Amino acid sequence: MILAVGPPPVVPDLVAGVSAAPLGVMLTLFVLFVGAKAGEEVARRLGQPAVVGELVGGFIVGPGALALAVPGETAFVLAEIGVVILLFSVGLEVRLDDLLAVGRPAVLTAIIAMILPILAGVGIGLFIGEGALAATFTGLALAATSIGITSRVLAEMGVLDRDFARVVLGAAVIDDVLVLILIGIVSGAADGDVSGSTLLVAVAAFGLVGIGFAAARRARGLKREVFTFPLFADTPLVPAFILMFAVALVSAAIGLAAIIGAFVAGLIVAETEAQDELQHEMRPLGQIFTPFFFAVTGAQLDLSALLDPSIAVLAIVLAVAGIATKAVGGFIGAHELGRWGAATVGFGMVPRGEVGIVVANLGLAAGLLSAGVFSAVLVAVVLTTVVAPYLLAWSIPKATAEAATAD
Amino acid sequence: MILAVGPPPVVPDLVAGVSAAPLGVMLTLFVLFVGAKAGEEVARRLGQPAVVGELVGGFIVGPGALALAVPGETAFVLAEIGVVILLFSVGLEVRLDDLLAVGRPAVLTAIIAMILPILAGVGIGLFIGEGALAATFTGLALAATSIGITSRVLAEMGVLDRDFARVVLGAAVIDDVLVLILIGIVSGAADGDVSGSTLLVAVAAFGLVGIGFAAARRARGLKREVFTFPLFADTPLVPAFILMFAVALVSAAIGLAAIIGAFVAGLIVAETEAQDELQHEMRPLGQIFTPFFFAVTGAQLDLSALLDPSIAVLAIVLAVAGIATKAVGGFIGAHELGRWGAATVGFGMVPRGEVGIVVANLGLAAGLLSAGVFSAVLVAVVLTTVVAPYLLAWSIPKATAEAATAD
Repeated sequence: MILAVGPPPVVPDLVAGVSAAPLGVMLTLFVLFVGAKAGEEVARRLGQPAVVGELVGGFIVGPGALALAVPGETAFVLAEIGVVILLFSVGLEVRLDDLLAVGRPAVLTAIIAMILPILAGVGIGLFIGEGALAATFTGLALAATSIGITSRVLAEMGVLDRDFARVVLGAAVIDDVLVLILIGIVSGAADGDVSGSTLLVAVAAFGLVGIGFAAARRARGLKREVFTFPLFADTPLVPAFILMFAVALVSAAIGLAAIIGAFVAGLIVAETEAQDELQHEMRPLGQIFTPFFFAVTGAQLDLSALLDPSIAVLAIVLAVAGIATKAVGGFIGAHELGRWGAATVGFGMVPRGEVGIVVANLGLAAGLLSAGVFSAVLVAVVLTTVVAPYLLAWSIPKATAEAATAD
Repeated sequence: MILAVGPPPVVPDLVAGVSAAPLGVMLTLFVLFVGAKAGEEVARRLGQPAVVGELVGGFIVGPGALALAVPGETAFVLAEIGVVILLFSVGLEVRLDDLLAVGRPAVLTAIIAMILPILAGVGIGLFIGEGALAATFTGLALAATSIGITSRVLAEMGVLDRDFARVVLGAAVIDDVLVLILIGIVSGAADGDVSGSTLLVAVAAFGLVGIGFAAARRARGLKREVFTFPLFADTPLVPAFILMFAVALVSAAIGLAAIIGAFVAGLIVAETEAQDELQHEMRPLGQIFTPFFFAVTGAQLDLSALLDPSIAVLAIVLAVAGIATKAVGGFIGAHELGRWGAATVGFGMVPRGEVGIVVANLGLAAGLLSAGVFSAVLVAVVLTTVVAPYLLAWSIPKATAEAATAD
């Protein structure tokens, strides 16, 4: 097998293909994809979350281990499109009403279970001597909640219709939006001009989200024909894809992360009558594109840094702090659901998944997180994701029994 | 809007994105995609085939016109994946029985309507002073039949259940396979070592197709569970995608075009019980990936060469020869269907579409076709695609009436 080691050549190889697409790049993509899927398979056979498997698979084929695939420009772009599609799909699952009219416990949980991990992460970051921004990234990575992983676990356990499930979902959504805005603010701040750009990015972030919310409200109940009006659109997919891509680019152009735009575009489309059909049509795209994000992220993992005992200790400290603060935050915020219901809400907020990884990546890309701290944060994020299903499997039966007794 | 003019930078820009994906590259992809779709929209509003619109749209945003988007490595790779997905999807529509057990008129039509255009193309190529290989590419580009375009037109006119439609489809499939094998042989020959490599590539081509046919036969009736056995596979999509990608890479690695492997992989999967579901799941991928192929192809079009009257004349000569030879080939091969039925078969073989463009691209990539001849071939291919729907609209009602009289 021809392997792509080193950066891709500027002049594409001449291949027996239509457009002189470099064969080495195609092979790199194939190895990353198969690595992610093989990793997922092993993870699932071991009862672990798929996302952990994709990360580990990407790491194993990547330059940090076997070096079978070294991501270049095309792999990075596919990874970016992959996470844009992921966040668009998450947005597609969220109704504006669920965001604006969630009950008191959901809001309380979202806020408390976000503030506590940020404080813990910032505290730990500052304690180990990081700058304020780097410590903030560490805190944000711990504050994120992965609605994807959360809802997958709840659905697998068949408890999506329970009160605690609704609170977790509502809180996770609010958490997601707040963290996404914070990501934008901190990313802008990380660009250098902290004083001026922070305000600008904050205005832009609230502006984009505000306009997005307003658009979502106006989009409510829009007919499918709004999307299929162009003759090229037999289904809503292509117009929605163009909208997603455009808002993501606008988001990136004004200094926000592209995924914020993608999420907002998803929120807008979620209000229209095309939502169901689009969820269906986006699924194959997510299945093909999104693994590149996790594989490329895993391929950037530098585990040799973990040989440093201080970094290994840091990873464990971050993971324990991340789990404890989310659990306590949920327990306090959702206490009206009863002891085990509230605990389940807290445990449901534990998995950080892709959003935590996104934050860590942003910190790395901005040059704020060292490779060592990045790896420690990533390991901590992975640990929270691995631990959460076990915590939920423990608390959900008790919460269900508790609710039955209360009735 | 920030525009990507010139080749993409080797070191990716630092963007507020997950993996430092270059914003310029993302913008280039967006402009190519929107250009293709806008072109399609205009084409369809004018009653022209979608594929023509995507080509023209890519040309307009490309370096030959507005230069809003200059395809780089990532665009070429997405284009290649796009045409691989297209040919895989075409393979998915074809049953081995339809290939092996087509009736006499289909086989006769396929052979005659392939030999005549090749002879015409080679004759024209040699007449204008091309070498033997370049003339062969010209002939092959005229010999290809686009089953995609053909079946789309027949379906739109609601005559897919007619005898002439079945003959066209069967003949187009045989034509496709033969042309694909010939592409592989000629591509191998184009690599330089004509004497040795031709045999090798011929053996490899027949070997791959032979093994593929044998695999398709053994795949007949395979349960969906063969695909969904891995835990990562909730649906057959991801395993089928990996199979497609792997066979395409093997195909490219042994010197054949990647699309041959993709087509063969499609044939194999078409025999299994997962076929229906996969056709459904591949559609969104085709809608997103395949436009990049046509847009990038259009972006490579150098229309300034057509200012040369000799090249403009060549394009028209090639188009007329391509249409006449296909029509005559179908008329002779399918004469037992009656006068208008046979004419409809011939007209149905006229659109060259993507396969003709693929051949022209191969000739360009191999350095055999000059930019001028490439443009002439491309214009000729586009003309056949544009003309065919009009020819079919003329002959199909007469063929239907003829069949009613005969009954």
